Amino acid sequence: MKKINIGMLGCGTVGTGVARILIKNKDLISSRTGAILNLKRIADIDITTDRGIRFDDGVMTSDVYKVVDDPDIDIILEMIGGETIAKDLTLRAINNGKHVVTANKALLAGQGNFIFRAAEEKGVDLAFEASVGGCMPIIKTLRESLAGNRIESMTGILNGTCNYILSKITDDGSTFKVALLEAQKRGYAEADPTLDIEGFDTAHKLTLLTSLAYGVEINLDDIYIEGISKILPIDIEFAGQFGYRIKLLAISKNRGDAVEARVHPTMITFDNILSNVNDTLNAITVSAEATGDILLYGHGAGMMPTASSVISDTVDIARNILSGSTGRIPLLSYQMKNIRKIPVMPIDEIFTHYYIRFFALDKPGVLSRISGILGKYEISIKSVHQKGRKVNGSVPLVMLTHQAREADITKALEEINSLDVVSDRPALIRIEDENSQD
Amino acid sequence: MKKINIGMLGCGTVGTGVARILIKNKDLISSRTGAILNLKRIADIDITTDRGIRFDDGVMTSDVYKVVDDPDIDIILEMIGGETIAKDLTLRAINNGKHVVTANKALLAGQGNFIFRAAEEKGVDLAFEASVGGCMPIIKTLRESLAGNRIESMTGILNGTCNYILSKITDDGSTFKVALLEAQKRGYAEADPTLDIEGFDTAHKLTLLTSLAYGVEINLDDIYIEGISKILPIDIEFAGQFGYRIKLLAISKNRGDAVEARVHPTMITFDNILSNVNDTLNAITVSAEATGDILLYGHGAGMMPTASSVISDTVDIARNILSGSTGRIPLLSYQMKNIRKIPVMPIDEIFTHYYIRFFALDKPGVLSRISGILGKYEISIKSVHQKGRKVNGSVPLVMLTHQAREADITKALEEINSLDVVSDRPALIRIEDENSQD
Repeated sequence: MKKINIGMLGCGTVGTGVARILIKNKDLISSRTGAILNLKRIADIDITTDRGIRFDDGVMTSDVYKVVDDPDIDIILEMIGGETIAKDLTLRAINNGKHVVTANKALLAGQGNFIFRAAEEKGVDLAFEASVGGCMPIIKTLRESLAGNRIESMTGILNGTCNYILSKITDDGSTFKVALLEAQKRGYAEADPTLDIEGFDTAHKLTLLTSLAYGVEINLDDIYIEGISKILPIDIEFAGQFGYRIKLLAISKNRGDAVEARVHPTMITFDNILSNVNDTLNAITVSAEATGDILLYGHGAGMMPTASSVISDTVDIARNILSGSTGRIPLLSYQMKNIRKIPVMPIDEIFTHYYIRFFALDKPGVLSRISGILGKYEISIKSVHQKGRKVNGSVPLVMLTHQAREADITKALEEINSLDVVSDRPALIRIEDENSQD
Repeated sequence: MKKINIGMLGCGTVGTGVARILIKNKDLISSRTGAILNLKRIADIDITTDRGIRFDDGVMTSDVYKVVDDPDIDIILEMIGGETIAKDLTLRAINNGKHVVTANKALLAGQGNFIFRAAEEKGVDLAFEASVGGCMPIIKTLRESLAGNRIESMTGILNGTCNYILSKITDDGSTFKVALLEAQKRGYAEADPTLDIEGFDTAHKLTLLTSLAYGVEINLDDIYIEGISKILPIDIEFAGQFGYRIKLLAISKNRGDAVEARVHPTMITFDNILSNVNDTLNAITVSAEATGDILLYGHGAGMMPTASSVISDTVDIARNILSGSTGRIPLLSYQMKNIRKIPVMPIDEIFTHYYIRFFALDKPGVLSRISGILGKYEISIKSVHQKGRKVNGSVPLVMLTHQAREADITKALEEINSLDVVSDRPALIRIEDENSQD
């Protein structure tokens, strides 16, 4: 049986998972692929830690070049992460004519256009299923299963850390701080959780998905990103009373000559299946012309689920090597020459429904002043709720709006915020409500 | 740009959808595939009906052989269905060296082993994503995305007609008969609905999925099949009171040297995401070693969703033709020589939880006689409920059991049924409850 040699750069959590599967499921993988996937060499700065795997002598090395420059290695698995060394080594592997599998969404979202072109020019495969949604086959679904469809939109819960924290606040009424500590204790959040909780990780993934779905090149920096650190239990409680749950969503809409691409906490109705995706789980809904909504759901992170996708990519590339069909599928789903560079719509221009929560003095005339300002900016109010008890002399006042333009909402809130009867900065949460008729 | 010629056999609902996508999205498909997918010829007995599509002259023909024997045609789309003509034409296309795309689950489940071997011998691709779950990419997920995993089990809602009827009974309290009529009125059920409501269609799909997931060959006739026609509103109502919904499930479990493969109405807990899959929608959970549970969800039938999968297969094959990599992926996910023929576990041997509903006379001693018989067969009762009003002198008596062996349950019910205090055949519904500790 033909042997395909694999070299791995980095043997941390996911790398260890990959090694485990390649070794434990060697026969199963061979019986599907028709070749032996041989993990020939692994480079890591730490070659002494016991990873619970018996490697043959000479497999582990601390010298990355022994992997990336080995002429016998066909496929490089880049499991280092980050945007510096990982980038150099990925490009070096490509230049050496090796196929690359990576889970590195930060690198691909930030500098992918450059890397994809290098792979295209060199005629090697570059696979990245593990970069978005862990074990959910979302990249394959976009690049292959929906190949005949105009994809209209995508809505995803793509970060397990945020979803865990929001689930925790929803279920227990914890504050954000307490929920984050719990997430860290369980290993679901990093010591510095910024990348996750401020929505950057989700935005990286959204950039990749948007490119693949619509055949476009967009700029990561143009994506509107708002994290979950300002969500209060009171807003989650109100949301529940109105029939909504709050999720950190990645939203992408195909507007023809532009795209909407945004990441922010969002209210969705209970009957939206995404509202039942809890804890660290991920899910994504893809809406395409012929199919309507498709949903994929699964573990979006973690050692083994992510490793599973790395293996799936590796088997795909091995099948290409065996059948001499490298480059069979365009890296970015569309032929490179057909990819259009298009703008991301500024957040100011989007239209959606809004939840606005004020802390206002409980006295006559307050509602009329606030609603007067909203009216001035043509924001139509769907309902007003004054609920709960006084906090520091103020009461929470909640308004749900009909569809409005974000720029108008921003201006109105600016003006309302300067009223003396409003004690805190108003909270604004966007609502995605497909059942709503306005 | 290279042109790949496509011939279609049958232009009914799905065929018309396929033609629409191929014509309307011609440019989009070319920009992804790098070739023109040219719908060269379509055979149908009816060539006069207006299908809302302008075909070029000579495309429509009533002569199937003008399609299947045309030497210029590369890919045949078999959209006829059924097991007679469709089989002959599929084999003829294969023998003519053409690749085949089909949505024909009845044919593949019943006679697939024969057809797959013919395709393998002739070295052509045979693709069938559209045969299971409409637009959900379940075949691709099993054959490609989970290639490194030992797949443990699958649980699916795979028939939209049944799911619609059960949703209708659940939501409105309709009887089965009324719900079926409504389904027929809306075009969700055939005039003769047997294939759907008695579970056969679901079993066809389960056979295919089981083969692909575990690399095995099983016999369709060995699958236990029970449809939904005997489900009463009262059972759905009781289920709801205990925190369950009733769904027609396809259940498949990898037991190593055998498989469980069964189709029957099943109670699942509200927090099982499948319980929220309603109306005509389909979903499937796949549980694999490294990934844990993955769920796919979408429209499982209908013109356009099914057509989308046919196109996805066609693009896949076109990509194989362009890169000279026909046969790149084993038809049945494993190399043909590695596929094991293994038995389906008889239903008598399964262990699960049960819901049993009796109509019994409302008098002293009844409960003790029934529970005595259950005890004799070592069936342990979790709870007993006597609810609701008398019907013809009898009251409904419901029992939920701990895990028990099906053979024991069957014997016990046989004996209970012969009691003079029990007025109707007891109803038995299996419960899949992963949270349960026994």
